[in-house]
Amino acid sequence: MKIIKFIHCAKGSVYTFNCVDYDGTITKGGYSTSIVVNERYCFLIPKSYPLASAGPLLCAGITVYSPMMRHNMNQPGKSLGVVGLGGLGHMAVKFGKAFGLRVTVFSTSMSKKEEALSFLGADQFVVSSNQEEMRALAKTLDFIIDTASGDHPFDPYMSLLKISGVLALVGFPSEVKFSPASLNLGNVDQELLPEVLQVVQKKLIQEMVDFCAANGIHPDIELIPIGYSNEALERVVSKDVKYRFVIDIENSLK
Amino acid sequence: MKIIKFIHCAKGSVYTFNCVDYDGTITKGGYSTSIVVNERYCFLIPKSYPLASAGPLLCAGITVYSPMMRHNMNQPGKSLGVVGLGGLGHMAVKFGKAFGLRVTVFSTSMSKKEEALSFLGADQFVVSSNQEEMRALAKTLDFIIDTASGDHPFDPYMSLLKISGVLALVGFPSEVKFSPASLNLGNVDQELLPEVLQVVQKKLIQEMVDFCAANGIHPDIELIPIGYSNEALERVVSKDVKYRFVIDIENSLK
Repeated sequence: MKIIKFIHCAKGSVYTFNCVDYDGTITKGGYSTSIVVNERYCFLIPKSYPLASAGPLLCAGITVYSPMMRHNMNQPGKSLGVVGLGGLGHMAVKFGKAFGLRVTVFSTSMSKKEEALSFLGADQFVVSSNQEEMRALAKTLDFIIDTASGDHPFDPYMSLLKISGVLALVGFPSEVKFSPASLNLGNVDQELLPEVLQVVQKKLIQEMVDFCAANGIHPDIELIPIGYSNEALERVVSKDVKYRFVIDIENSLK
Repeated sequence: MKIIKFIHCAKGSVYTFNCVDYDGTITKGGYSTSIVVNERYCFLIPKSYPLASAGPLLCAGITVYSPMMRHNMNQPGKSLGVVGLGGLGHMAVKFGKAFGLRVTVFSTSMSKKEEALSFLGADQFVVSSNQEEMRALAKTLDFIIDTASGDHPFDPYMSLLKISGVLALVGFPSEVKFSPASLNLGNVDQELLPEVLQVVQKKLIQEMVDFCAANGIHPDIELIPIGYSNEALERVVSKDVKYRFVIDIENSLK
């Protein structure tokens, strides 16, 4: 029950910066030489695993790892669709390949094709507006992880699911809209899952960190000093980042 | 696997009337003195159970029984919300009370209050536009079965679910639309389930029939001769039916 409370913020959220914590103190974030943390929120990063890589695991990583595990998508041979190739999507591809899945990446443009196939090792790349390629994939996917936060239609993706297939929504578009027919007519059991606050038990997070260390899975990051933050923010807005900026606090504060 | 094929119509649907069956013959419906049916599609109706009551069980009944069972809503003490009080909704209330649940009925108007509380035995009746009553129910329901086929908002209902609560959609509005925030922010795991073609194994249907016979659960019906069909259709359109018309074929064809 404590774990559930922790991850669902049932009492409301405490934000990292300038927020009143439950003990009345003001939160000051983690950009500091030392920080006091309840052991409940601590994870063991294996010595062999770069700390800079571990950062994005605890957000982008677990956000895709959790629904994949929950729906048994760690079974080799299953087919995974990944909608959107950003911080979340590229981790879903990496996990998918490590689990032995057949991975299809969906994107709105061809620009990420080379990246998806050659660099991340996806098996297939489909531009979502290509109706012919989309039709060819009808009822072929066991699971779709939808990481796109821009508004996009859901019905075309739902038609790609096998019977009892699942669509996990981990992006945050302005609204979710689809026809009930996408649930009813042949494709059933699509499940829409929440993003960050999903059921991510502490155990699962540690399991993911250990899995990444054991299998050499690293988020692709760009390590920056804290002084670069404003420029980095601008580049995030213009989508010029592959795939996460990580601030090197230790060296920034020396 | 055969059962899955049967219920998901993976090869397409064969409609009851004037449709080409897989063997090339034309389907002629069930309004006849005798009918040939594959044993796969047959269910045993206990002798004590009126045949007229059994008809709606195999459609309206199983449509609500199936998601309720799938989500363990047969455990006394749990809280059930029923959106819409028609053929599906009134069966959900009856099953809910038979399972020992606390049942809240949601409707767009007060007109069904007496019916819901006194006749069907629901514990609570809420007009969905009453924001105060809706707010008072925030995060209190384990499960909502949404039987409304008219267009309606989903976010207000999703806010009534407990953490990990489930909303099962069994109605067929023109579209499903909600904010991802309804999934993310505190209430998670809402699942949208399909209507008629859901995973209803043959075993489950028989189990439901037997449960209804053992517990005296009957759909509320109006038994009509076949000659009344046109008038009955008009009354269905004007929503003047509680809750299902059943055609008495045997006596109609005498």
